[in-house]
Amino acid sequence: MKLIFLPSVLLVISNVHAFLYNELVQYIDSHKEEYVEVLRDWVEVESDSSDVLRRSDLHRMMEITAQKLRSLGGNVELVDIGEQELLDGQTLALPKVVTAQFGNDPDKTTVCIYGHVDVQPAKMEDGWDTDPYNLTDLGGNLYGRGASDNKAPVLAWIHAVEAYQALSMELPVNVKFVIEGMEETGSNGLDAMILAQQDTFFSDVDYIIISDCSWLSRRPALTYGTRGNTYFFAEVEGPNKDLHSGVYGGTVIEPMTDLIGILDTLISPSGKILIPGIREAVAPLSDEEWKMYQDIEFDIDDYKSKIGVSQLMYNNKVDLLAHRWRYPTVSIHGIEGAFSASGSKTVIPAKVTAKFSIRQVPNMDPAMVKKQVTDYLHSVFAKRKSPNKLKVTMIIGAKPWLADPSHPLYEAGKVAVKRVFGVEPDLIREGGTIPIARTFQDVTGKSIIMLPIGGFDDGLHSQNEKISRYNYVEGTKLFATYLNEVAQIKRSKV
Amino acid sequence: MKLIFLPSVLLVISNVHAFLYNELVQYIDSHKEEYVEVLRDWVEVESDSSDVLRRSDLHRMMEITAQKLRSLGGNVELVDIGEQELLDGQTLALPKVVTAQFGNDPDKTTVCIYGHVDVQPAKMEDGWDTDPYNLTDLGGNLYGRGASDNKAPVLAWIHAVEAYQALSMELPVNVKFVIEGMEETGSNGLDAMILAQQDTFFSDVDYIIISDCSWLSRRPALTYGTRGNTYFFAEVEGPNKDLHSGVYGGTVIEPMTDLIGILDTLISPSGKILIPGIREAVAPLSDEEWKMYQDIEFDIDDYKSKIGVSQLMYNNKVDLLAHRWRYPTVSIHGIEGAFSASGSKTVIPAKVTAKFSIRQVPNMDPAMVKKQVTDYLHSVFAKRKSPNKLKVTMIIGAKPWLADPSHPLYEAGKVAVKRVFGVEPDLIREGGTIPIARTFQDVTGKSIIMLPIGGFDDGLHSQNEKISRYNYVEGTKLFATYLNEVAQIKRSKV
Repeated sequence: MKLIFLPSVLLVISNVHAFLYNELVQYIDSHKEEYVEVLRDWVEVESDSSDVLRRSDLHRMMEITAQKLRSLGGNVELVDIGEQELLDGQTLALPKVVTAQFGNDPDKTTVCIYGHVDVQPAKMEDGWDTDPYNLTDLGGNLYGRGASDNKAPVLAWIHAVEAYQALSMELPVNVKFVIEGMEETGSNGLDAMILAQQDTFFSDVDYIIISDCSWLSRRPALTYGTRGNTYFFAEVEGPNKDLHSGVYGGTVIEPMTDLIGILDTLISPSGKILIPGIREAVAPLSDEEWKMYQDIEFDIDDYKSKIGVSQLMYNNKVDLLAHRWRYPTVSIHGIEGAFSASGSKTVIPAKVTAKFSIRQVPNMDPAMVKKQVTDYLHSVFAKRKSPNKLKVTMIIGAKPWLADPSHPLYEAGKVAVKRVFGVEPDLIREGGTIPIARTFQDVTGKSIIMLPIGGFDDGLHSQNEKISRYNYVEGTKLFATYLNEVAQIKRSKV
Repeated sequence: MKLIFLPSVLLVISNVHAFLYNELVQYIDSHKEEYVEVLRDWVEVESDSSDVLRRSDLHRMMEITAQKLRSLGGNVELVDIGEQELLDGQTLALPKVVTAQFGNDPDKTTVCIYGHVDVQPAKMEDGWDTDPYNLTDLGGNLYGRGASDNKAPVLAWIHAVEAYQALSMELPVNVKFVIEGMEETGSNGLDAMILAQQDTFFSDVDYIIISDCSWLSRRPALTYGTRGNTYFFAEVEGPNKDLHSGVYGGTVIEPMTDLIGILDTLISPSGKILIPGIREAVAPLSDEEWKMYQDIEFDIDDYKSKIGVSQLMYNNKVDLLAHRWRYPTVSIHGIEGAFSASGSKTVIPAKVTAKFSIRQVPNMDPAMVKKQVTDYLHSVFAKRKSPNKLKVTMIIGAKPWLADPSHPLYEAGKVAVKRVFGVEPDLIREGGTIPIARTFQDVTGKSIIMLPIGGFDDGLHSQNEKISRYNYVEGTKLFATYLNEVAQIKRSKV
């Protein structure tokens, strides 16, 4: 059985059910304080998937998610996805993936909502104004790590389903959930799980919906593409222990100097990637794309003032959006093993590991990028004639994802946005990576939409991450409405 | 009043007192376990002068030191040297300087022993095999932060005085102590204190003895020079907060890329300093120096295998010793503000601060180096045309120190080493910095000797710092003997 969609002009009401928009809106408005309290409980759990010492919190977060879905009567499972191998060879249990199902009417469309409940690292000393794990309600914003990425959107979907139930309204579509706990570190184990359940859990899924992204401006948006990411460790190892820079400086070939030397060959001051072959693989910008970018609501001055810079890499909207969404870039995140505390230390670090990543766009291939980066760094390093040892490892290799924005899923999105917010959404792409979008596309062959509710200034992965009360509550209404709109897409079984 | 010295051929016994060498040796040998226990108590105090959060431990360490000296009947003072201004403008009380005096016979020579009881930072996670603040007695070595740098040498001097007292032997010289707590961060406040007490505490001092250094090999050594140090912070500040590298990467000019770019212009892969003017200031290597270096006991293969490298910056003894002792070098210690933990984080750090230092040798001038480095980095940075802000600060500017190794202080050292160890000492320089040596020389005009007891493999500033029981105990004997030998130097008051 294969589902195809008919052009959007044929949209008709195919499932007969009552959709009481005003009642849903009223219900959601009158329960918003409860929604905030549940988000508070979720943010409290330090479910940092990159920190192995937080793994028990992460396991607990998955249990809390499963329990929440069970409480709505969903058919919930915690799927074991195996273990993670650490760099030192040890293994660690991966957080289970939570799946849930609400309704299994074969005459209805089935949507599968993907989200994640793990978070990026966050510490007060990074420069947060409030405790990142204590949701803080200030000026209409809810501050906390994971508030926008991705705990509130996951809860908004759950609350949308709950609203139907509470009003005894039949769900217009069957709703499935796939909620994972390793998104922030590359969705380890999820690919295999999707592949394994391709013919079971995913067999009756028509569409996949992802809300792990943000608007571009104050205008709501629908997202039709994301960049992928390759994340590298470049380790330079020299002496067998850290050395006193007074005693040994001048006689030893320092790993830190070598590392700085090779990092400096990755990207030029003007943003040109210097690794051979990387730029050549990128799909050219089409005239149509250029035109679309022109029409998008995006204020460069707003963008600059929001992040507090006087100048960006490009000074016009199209170049800026293109380099945010559809060109690769290199970011150097930091160095492990060197002196990183405040104060001064006169040390020659013995082993230093740079962390950098290269965002992926069509038609780049992470496996090829791995080879290009590794070969290039080794060739640059060889020229230094250093006795130190270089090891380059790619620890994340996530492909980009791109959808067709004329698909009825997007038409349904436009109708829902118009209904809730009274405006047309922007059609945008996302500079960040939701690795699983590409896997869903490749493995299940289903169509995907990204339907964000996060604000443009939510500070994902940054200090003072937040979601506004407005986006959280109106987002819940959007999701409830969207379920109804998706049900209108004419299905044709062939 | 000015003291001059007579040539060493005139050495005669000028003060009549009994020197019972065998009794001293026997006393020291029979008290070595007590010495180890006192060192254990001292190492337990995390007197890290670079960590403002450890300041109360540092104050406590100064009190413990004062109390130890008081218990021997010394005339002890805790000298207030004021406050330290932190980068954020706050102030913090500096650790008091401990001074002590044993004997004030105007017919005797007066020596002043300098040492410090603050330590470098150390954490288990840096790669220590044992708790750095719990002295661990393994295979004849005493492992702990500060064991060799400089707590055991300070204690060895105190125990040397104590041995004379316990045996009711008259001290052959008047002994003064100056013990500070800011050595590891540049001896903040000590210069002013020495200047202020130039005509009081220091007025009757004939010689200054410093034991804040190490042997070069298994052969004992006398040290006649040290390198100075200029320590720089180079801060690049961009956005007003850390940014998600997916969302912002490609549009923002990243501070980390700028910082890597300017750091890469400091030193070439072959160790050549690229900052204009730095190399030109260095005093040329004389034939005499070359000859001295040739005769020093130093095994390159030993050196390589000890630090675990296959190749050094130079492959012959003279070049290697010269670049360790009498040429400048650049070491990049690390970067504050970038991602430095284990794992992966997709962040664009908003503000990153590199820490690097340049060792100083005759005839470099730290004030000039500050200008050279600052001008150079700003000019390199300007070429990048980055909107980010660069701030270069020199936080330590310590001059090098050089003594005349034919001075009678060194002759006395040779006699003492021969007596205790049965061999001639090597005459060496030190790559590291004891900033106060230069101040003592400039302010008091007194002659200085560095008399090390630390082993060549003690791992100063590194993981698993240690002093061997042998060096600690025999070093105590050396100090007791040296006090007697110094008393033999003919004094002439003019």
